[in-house]
Amino acid sequence: MLKLYDYLPSGNGYKVRLLLHQLEIPFELETLDIWSGATRTPEFLKKNPNGRIPTLQLEDGRYLWESHAIMWYLAEGSALIPANKFAKAQVLQWMCFEQYELEPALGVIRARKKFKSSHQDPSWPETEKKLRLRGLQALEVLNAQLKDCVFLVNNCYSLADIAVFGYVHVAPEADFDMAAYPNILTWQKNVQSQPLHVPITWRP
Amino acid sequence: MLKLYDYLPSGNGYKVRLLLHQLEIPFELETLDIWSGATRTPEFLKKNPNGRIPTLQLEDGRYLWESHAIMWYLAEGSALIPANKFAKAQVLQWMCFEQYELEPALGVIRARKKFKSSHQDPSWPETEKKLRLRGLQALEVLNAQLKDCVFLVNNCYSLADIAVFGYVHVAPEADFDMAAYPNILTWQKNVQSQPLHVPITWRP
Repeated sequence: MLKLYDYLPSGNGYKVRLLLHQLEIPFELETLDIWSGATRTPEFLKKNPNGRIPTLQLEDGRYLWESHAIMWYLAEGSALIPANKFAKAQVLQWMCFEQYELEPALGVIRARKKFKSSHQDPSWPETEKKLRLRGLQALEVLNAQLKDCVFLVNNCYSLADIAVFGYVHVAPEADFDMAAYPNILTWQKNVQSQPLHVPITWRP
Repeated sequence: MLKLYDYLPSGNGYKVRLLLHQLEIPFELETLDIWSGATRTPEFLKKNPNGRIPTLQLEDGRYLWESHAIMWYLAEGSALIPANKFAKAQVLQWMCFEQYELEPALGVIRARKKFKSSHQDPSWPETEKKLRLRGLQALEVLNAQLKDCVFLVNNCYSLADIAVFGYVHVAPEADFDMAAYPNILTWQKNVQSQPLHVPITWRP
């Protein structure tokens, strides 16, 4: 059986858990406390030298990490990756956009507010200001893309929707006012209406 | 003919240019001055709403953006994307690692030093300190991975090598001392020895 190393509040981990559930792939879950260094132990670094969750252990003992790479591996051959070459590249385009523009803003601010608020860092206010501006710009781009669209690529539910949903649906936890993005809110409902949808802290 | 909107010193743009050249795909190049706002004009935002290079225009007028998505589109069916499902996911894994860990450290520091050194930002020293630490950690992970390896995945030259090479080979321009990473230096030579290799500022 597959084994997923994860941390339940993680949007990156959630992408993989949601996908596994929607593909009806059974898996074992081991949750790790990322804030206490559980992903930086010599033992865990043998699984993922980059010391992060999610990390997937295959049946044969090999490991795969980086949420979007794990997702691609799991979804190959399913309708969540379009067969058409251009559509497939567009799915990757929105996954890259998520990991470069959205996650470093929404995810980092959320983590700070939710889990590290007592951590002393004099430069945080300035950092947050920059990240928030970047997040607002990315949400504008996403909201415009979703005008009159049911899903991100060709109106078909794909890995792109799962990847982008991961942190966008918890953006209010990073104090982003989502009322400014009505197309995103409609799209979120579409994602949540998909069969076998589960919330972020779901575990098997 | 394909048309690439790009900026010659960009590592992200270079990945696409190098790939196009190695795949022997002819393309037209339009270079843009990213520092003067040329990618934020209403006209360019119609091509890429995220306002960044590289952006690829296909023969039929459609656009694709995000360097790694463009690369996937161009290399489909070539030996640069392994057919094996696990190896393919590993290629994506290292591409994601590049875009999340390496580029935001090496690429951002390099851009600041090389092109924006006169730009006033009181928080830059603190930001650079954090980015440099992140870059050093990522280079450690990469150096360990490349021990006894010719290339990143299964010792076969792939999109992963092109993607990671983009900014790593210009890390000295961001004041990273690469002598500390002998495996990376050996691997760089392997990448540079590939047929049809061209330098970062190459243009057709």
